[in-house]
Amino acid sequence: MTNTQITLIQIDNYGPWTVTPEPRREVDLQTLQSRLYADLSQLFGAQNGYVFFSRFDNMIAITNGIDLETHELVQESIGNRYPVTVSLSVASNPAPIQALEFATNQLQAEGSAQDQRRQEIVEGDPLEESVRRHDDVQLAHFDINDVTSKYTDKLNEFETFINVEQSYAELMQYACTEYESLTFFVGGDNFIAICPSLKATEYRDIITHVREVVGTELKVGVGRAATACQAGIDAKHALEECRETGAAVQFHS
Amino acid sequence: MTNTQITLIQIDNYGPWTVTPEPRREVDLQTLQSRLYADLSQLFGAQNGYVFFSRFDNMIAITNGIDLETHELVQESIGNRYPVTVSLSVASNPAPIQALEFATNQLQAEGSAQDQRRQEIVEGDPLEESVRRHDDVQLAHFDINDVTSKYTDKLNEFETFINVEQSYAELMQYACTEYESLTFFVGGDNFIAICPSLKATEYRDIITHVREVVGTELKVGVGRAATACQAGIDAKHALEECRETGAAVQFHS
Amino acid sequence: MTNTQITLIQIDNYGPWTVTPEPRREVDLQTLQSRLYADLSQLFGAQNGYVFFSRFDNMIAITNGIDLETHELVQESIGNRYPVTVSLSVASNPAPIQALEFATNQLQAEGSAQDQRRQEIVEGDPLEESVRRHDDVQLAHFDINDVTSKYTDKLNEFETFINVEQSYAELMQYACTEYESLTFFVGGDNFIAICPSLKATEYRDIITHVREVVGTELKVGVGRAATACQAGIDAKHALEECRETGAAVQFHS
Amino acid sequence: MTNTQITLIQIDNYGPWTVTPEPRREVDLQTLQSRLYADLSQLFGAQNGYVFFSRFDNMIAITNGIDLETHELVQESIGNRYPVTVSLSVASNPAPIQALEFATNQLQAEGSAQDQRRQEIVEGDPLEESVRRHDDVQLAHFDINDVTSKYTDKLNEFETFINVEQSYAELMQYACTEYESLTFFVGGDNFIAICPSLKATEYRDIITHVREVVGTELKVGVGRAATACQAGIDAKHALEECRETGAAVQFHS
Repeated sequence: MTNTQITLIQIDNYGPWTVTPEPRREVDLQTLQSRLYADLSQLFGAQNGYVFFSRFDNMIAITNGIDLETHELVQESIGNRYPVTVSLSVASNPAPIQALEFATNQLQAEGSAQDQRRQEIVEGDPLEESVRRHDDVQLAHFDINDVTSKYTDKLNEFETFINVEQSYAELMQYACTEYESLTFFVGGDNFIAICPSLKATEYRDIITHVREVVGTELKVGVGRAATACQAGIDAKHALEECRETGAAVQFHS
Repeated sequence: MTNTQITLIQIDNYGPWTVTPEPRREVDLQTLQSRLYADLSQLFGAQNGYVFFSRFDNMIAITNGIDLETHELVQESIGNRYPVTVSLSVASNPAPIQALEFATNQLQAEGSAQDQRRQEIVEGDPLEESVRRHDDVQLAHFDINDVTSKYTDKLNEFETFINVEQSYAELMQYACTEYESLTFFVGGDNFIAICPSLKATEYRDIITHVREVVGTELKVGVGRAATACQAGIDAKHALEECRETGAAVQFHS
Repeated sequence: MTNTQITLIQIDNYGPWTVTPEPRREVDLQTLQSRLYADLSQLFGAQNGYVFFSRFDNMIAITNGIDLETHELVQESIGNRYPVTVSLSVASNPAPIQALEFATNQLQAEGSAQDQRRQEIVEGDPLEESVRRHDDVQLAHFDINDVTSKYTDKLNEFETFINVEQSYAELMQYACTEYESLTFFVGGDNFIAICPSLKATEYRDIITHVREVVGTELKVGVGRAATACQAGIDAKHALEECRETGAAVQFHS
Repeated sequence: MTNTQITLIQIDNYGPWTVTPEPRREVDLQTLQSRLYADLSQLFGAQNGYVFFSRFDNMIAITNGIDLETHELVQESIGNRYPVTVSLSVASNPAPIQALEFATNQLQAEGSAQDQRRQEIVEGDPLEESVRRHDDVQLAHFDINDVTSKYTDKLNEFETFINVEQSYAELMQYACTEYESLTFFVGGDNFIAICPSLKATEYRDIITHVREVVGTELKVGVGRAATACQAGIDAKHALEECRETGAAVQFHS
């Protein structure tokens, strides 16, 4: 059984800030958002966590092994360097979507995302060291077969992008509804899913579903470890094995 | 008639680099990609351009008013500061998707995105100053009505994200197929479309389509100017008017 | 005759901010300061300007060719992305130190650097295009002869650093007092001086003075152009010539 | 007795890189250097270390509590995100200058800073956990009395800067020669010294020396802890006490 610790990261009162006193330049907002994401990636990454940008104003992190004090330091560091602040809500569950559900509920209970007084919340109970296990986190790294030769080098870039996006839209929804997994686009033709302890047949089902609905051919490498960083790098190595052997699904051994 | 100048930005031989000699840490790739995007946003933004992250390894920019020499400087600056290099291909057309089609073709003609010898290409013919007009660029800034109260504060964050992504997947495809427009997710519940000179009825059709297929209610502010930055800020002001008046479509006046 | 346009950049009310409500983590302050400097370098650099970090809370820029509107955009962009704001004061003079003197006076007249109400000032009169000339900016790029073999590879790093710092302390003071120049350490063993139209004998005098007082041997390449970027790259090429020919002073031709 | 663990960080073969195939734009080098420093600050800071920029191509860090594996991760992360690589050499000693001396020797023994084949060295023996103590690191945070009213708001910015630099040049040299301390300018009017276990009389002597030679009045707060971050924040609190009480030297209690 997996036990994923999820942290929901929400920029406090961000929507109103972006248009007060007048709409701010998009170029600066894009820079702010992507750098904030990069910094959070590094801050949680230094403790073996992963952050996904998702909507940028709300980001989702895997934080197994990261305690509340470290969350507070991350929050303080962002507050020291950005014109905006962030709230953090932590929860754990064998099913990643349930962990996120709890984390979201906790934060919503403190007030609206656009409540001016709800600032720099830190909430939730990270996993005690005593209950953590070597295989709490299962990550699946998907990519699209032959994306360069079939898409990037052949179609116009927006057509390629549409293909990637349609694949993602289907994959993220199906893996969530059917398998309680959280899947994120991470650039290029890559998607990373936070999963409960799914088996090869279940990954095959996901791949089949995406092929049938969208027409793109995915493959997937799967890693499992105590932290996101380790599970993630194992998943990448497994994906490299897929590339070599032609397998559609490969667990890291 | 609009005349959008599009620049396709492609990281040279990026896929192989990310796994050579072994898969690189995802945390670092995410940081690299998002900072590269932030820097390109600032570099083109300093000349009134816009960059969209799209797939991160391939980015799409609006570059009306930016000449080839400036493109070369941007390319040199990235090469001086990153472990990867970028190729740039420029083309213009009244229909944004056509401009991107030409830009993509030009770059593909130079070799594969994963051709080790195809590096730091700069190609294409930016618009001569003499043919540029005050209304070459039309941008439409969409958002989802009441996203905070209906979604963010109510659903779990992944459900909200699924709604945003499904809306985006539908919007990007429909606006491209029907209206030759290029639409990008820019965070939160915001989408920016690069359009030919569409009219209010056409934006209403897009909004209706997304509501019927996905169920989300969009509104849109539209700006038109000589450069992306000006058209974009005008679109934002028009969107603020929508918020005040309840209009679904508003052109900046 | 040169005509250097200098911009003094001052973080508004920075000292108090760093200790309110309690001293902020040094690691974050260092990150904030060095990234703010990097961003200002890029923002002014995109318009062919140069920024020197000097004290970090007060930075000095060469801004020939950059108008007040662009200064305001830079200021806005920083305000959009940082928890602090900056004030900017512009002045020009054949003698760089005089330009800075005027710029400083203008800003001081608006209130103290720690006056909470003195925020986001933009002041001064950039050079009209009509009075700008192709040789307004003279930059001298100094380095220490054989620094790697004589110092870096031989002494401990702090001894090397002491040598570099003592050289800098002497160089900055002498070049300012005797020649109205502003000299900045730019890393390694490199110093860049903003000069009036000094001649080779005057550079030789500076080099001799530093050798006699501190014992380090400098050489210098000199460039002159309409903007800092061009004068600076010319100075670097001239310095490369020094390396090849053994000359102590070389003007770019 | 203190026991400072110092890491020397050296950019590999940096000088030649900056001029190959031709001198690179100064604006990009400044951006590269200051961001590399910011990232190293965050990477070591996440493990309670401190980094000082010193010459930028050679940086000096306090790394008590940071093991070799973490050093390797930092090195890998920089290599993944920058066009340059870094070498790291670690050593410990009660006297900070001795620790740096050993660290420098170790690295020099591997080859020249400009040896193309000497890349990504990691060397030395971090302190075993068993020998670490709660008071291994002593940091002294100096600033100049009334710098805003006496200098920033009164003199031109370069005169102020000259005063700060002369103070620093004297302080760094005297504290090193007399007290085996390593002192760094950290912006504004702030200097941080890594010290052995100096007493109040010794700090008074340093302050007196700088006043007599340069004329500036310093005060100092001193902290002592197991890591740089804790010692540093304690030193800042002690400095705040100086501000309140008018004391010239204050140890954190």
